Amino acid sequence: MQKTHKIYEGKAKIIYATNNPELLIQYFKDSATAFNGIKKAEIAGKGELNNTISAYIMGELAKHNIATHFIEKLNSKEQLIKKVNIIPLEVIIRNTIAGSLAKKLHLTEGVDLPHPIFEICYKNDALGDPLINEDQAVYALQLTSQEHLATIKTTTLKINSILQKLFAEINIKLVDFKIEFGYDLNQNILLADEISPDSCRLWDLNTSQKLDKDIFRQDLGSLVDGYQEIINRFFKK
Amino acid sequence: MQKTHKIYEGKAKIIYATNNPELLIQYFKDSATAFNGIKKAEIAGKGELNNTISAYIMGELAKHNIATHFIEKLNSKEQLIKKVNIIPLEVIIRNTIAGSLAKKLHLTEGVDLPHPIFEICYKNDALGDPLINEDQAVYALQLTSQEHLATIKTTTLKINSILQKLFAEINIKLVDFKIEFGYDLNQNILLADEISPDSCRLWDLNTSQKLDKDIFRQDLGSLVDGYQEIINRFFKK
Repeated sequence: MQKTHKIYEGKAKIIYATNNPELLIQYFKDSATAFNGIKKAEIAGKGELNNTISAYIMGELAKHNIATHFIEKLNSKEQLIKKVNIIPLEVIIRNTIAGSLAKKLHLTEGVDLPHPIFEICYKNDALGDPLINEDQAVYALQLTSQEHLATIKTTTLKINSILQKLFAEINIKLVDFKIEFGYDLNQNILLADEISPDSCRLWDLNTSQKLDKDIFRQDLGSLVDGYQEIINRFFKK
Repeated sequence: MQKTHKIYEGKAKIIYATNNPELLIQYFKDSATAFNGIKKAEIAGKGELNNTISAYIMGELAKHNIATHFIEKLNSKEQLIKKVNIIPLEVIIRNTIAGSLAKKLHLTEGVDLPHPIFEICYKNDALGDPLINEDQAVYALQLTSQEHLATIKTTTLKINSILQKLFAEINIKLVDFKIEFGYDLNQNILLADEISPDSCRLWDLNTSQKLDKDIFRQDLGSLVDGYQEIINRFFKK
């Protein structure tokens, strides 16, 4: 398997083609962005940390029969993945009120929800990734079918349960997370993209210390120290 | 039954108490507002037209076993209604792309949807009545239960079918509409508020001429003439 050319560059990752049309290489950049790209920085070490954390989490999900695009970690910043066509939805679960939900509805950050909240946003930078509902996704934007969206919702709630346990074991509260799905070449729906402190809110269970990208968004200190702390806890278990 | 004191005044209606604690009087004002109250006008005759249209539509819905707050039209601007506690949701059905949906997602106005879209907005002027999803309504804002929201959705889709037929008979396309529900004193869910050209988009089936509040929003001519045209068609049938 040979890396060939770049096919996509996003804010935090680059996707390369390989000589196998079913396989891609996902490269984790050191770039940090927030507020739809308005705040930006290069943070040495971030790419490596996210590659390690996302590879570990995708592996754990696979053990629980979640179908993912992840195949293997290749080196410090790259992983081998299955080629998927990304469904342009940011799929979100919230267990605790934080971030845009608190802001939009004037709710208090940190309040635990009685049931996980499932949200979808239309992945479209020009429109600012707006919240949409399921009817809008299926009938107005025609991004997927009603049946596939139901599968995505069920899978996402299952992923939430697995991740909540995984993080609770290392004394971390999973406040919320964003994931993406794609269709593989056989039209199977796979979990894609990454699961890392860039895409989750992760709070220490005792101190509520933030160990995720809010460190960068809110200038709370060293992002690398926060992400490294998660790795230390996962691999010390 | 005696009208007593004003208990609520909104942008387009006033609610009065009566000497019967289960009954209220709904008064239709001549005020027109748009864009969350930024555009305002007094339009003589508007209150009377909406009272007539809404009374007629609520009566037709009752014939199809939709439970509503409407009892009877009392005079040109007033109707007798059952007291309900309004659930703070703007419940919307869209059959054709128009208005905020077109604007928010950069979609083409006038395109018919393959299936009606159900939307809910949090009725809160300070927040700008934002679109929310069902999980947010139930678990974050706790506005109603999941079961009651399912009832509201089913009822709203049934109302849509009835209204589409009713308007098709007078050569009008029901593009979209907004309704509200409330709990009566026995916790039954009743259709409340009004159904009028203030809360529906209504286009002539042949010419696509707008016969609704977009006449006011977009300065398209005489709002009273548009609303009167609907009454003429309903009562000439």
